[in-house]
Amino acid sequence: MITLHHCVSARSFRPLWLLEELGTPYELVMHAFPPRVRDESFLKINPLGTVPALFDGEVAMTESAAICQYLAGRYPEAGLAVGQDDPAYGDYLNFLHFGEATLTFPQTLVLRYGRFEPEQRQSPQVVEDYSRWFLSRLRTLEPRLKRDAFICAGRFTAADVSVGYALLLASHIGLDERFKPAVADYWQRLQAREAFARAKSAEREAALAQGVSPKASMEEG
Amino acid sequence: MITLHHCVSARSFRPLWLLEELGTPYELVMHAFPPRVRDESFLKINPLGTVPALFDGEVAMTESAAICQYLAGRYPEAGLAVGQDDPAYGDYLNFLHFGEATLTFPQTLVLRYGRFEPEQRQSPQVVEDYSRWFLSRLRTLEPRLKRDAFICAGRFTAADVSVGYALLLASHIGLDERFKPAVADYWQRLQAREAFARAKSAEREAALAQGVSPKASMEEG
Repeated sequence: MITLHHCVSARSFRPLWLLEELGTPYELVMHAFPPRVRDESFLKINPLGTVPALFDGEVAMTESAAICQYLAGRYPEAGLAVGQDDPAYGDYLNFLHFGEATLTFPQTLVLRYGRFEPEQRQSPQVVEDYSRWFLSRLRTLEPRLKRDAFICAGRFTAADVSVGYALLLASHIGLDERFKPAVADYWQRLQAREAFARAKSAEREAALAQGVSPKASMEEG
Repeated sequence: MITLHHCVSARSFRPLWLLEELGTPYELVMHAFPPRVRDESFLKINPLGTVPALFDGEVAMTESAAICQYLAGRYPEAGLAVGQDDPAYGDYLNFLHFGEATLTFPQTLVLRYGRFEPEQRQSPQVVEDYSRWFLSRLRTLEPRLKRDAFICAGRFTAADVSVGYALLLASHIGLDERFKPAVADYWQRLQAREAFARAKSAEREAALAQGVSPKASMEEG
């Protein structure tokens, strides 16, 4: 049985969404944010103190985009992976990483220095620097998404989950108002997926059942 | 023929190092840093304006850790990839991502707000926040590297190139003085590899031959 440790709307939403796309059973363990601070015993589960932490038998993983590739490859019948012999394999790997390293990390700076830090440690300069950084990188997807419904391979894959989470985070921050048209349409398409809606319900229900606030908490692993 | 666009010591050192580990021929195109600013025509090569940009026939990639996985998988006989059926596959994917998203991005904040920005825009607070962030994440590798010579699978793989670049960047910034013993030993082991030395020579020689400064330039793709 797969176990996923998750905070509402954190990066661990990626594996949660992917698990719902796969339709495979999993156990969802909710944590208040930030987990290493709100519950020190979590460090025994994941020494990084971050979410996601995913366990699948002997396999333990903490990087959300890596988990998406791992799960998509483990259940090939769902068609969410792109095989090594596929001409789109390079794109697939590239966008799995791009969604996190290029599109998500800069937004955590916007969150940290615009919202999470106490007022005297906030930095409008960093917020502006990394909002622009994110939006300029995001803009490079426009030609691709004008042409294609999904980010690579002509179909929905785990790479869309990686990029899609970055758009979810941007919508929490309010940066979605600055999306260009093709990215905005793509974001609508992703949100319209049944598995996306099921993942949103699953985290809300699990949070309520496990006594964790169902409010969004966002800067993690 | 594979073409790699590179700035000295930037993240594009990952694919350069991996190409030297593979011993496969490649063309190395050097750029002054930051490439999008120093040569606007680079935006036609890579609309992100970042390095690496790697071209292999129809394949175009810009994420350094993704390129490492791609190249390691394309030349399986070199033994730098971990197969999907290997028990270490989850670790392999995890550390490919960890090297970049968790260990490299925070250091680019240290560089930007400690060195690259004009003085009035520098931020000792951000430098300190993300130096600590990096070192606390790095510390979680200590038990693993006390036990094993390499980051996963009991042997050198593309995941070591991903993590190893983060250690190279830390040594440029001066954060290597704060490495714990097992990480420090691991970093020595990585630097002692012949392919690492060949990659360092290759970038220096190509920089001089192409009229680019051979000085380190570091915050990119």
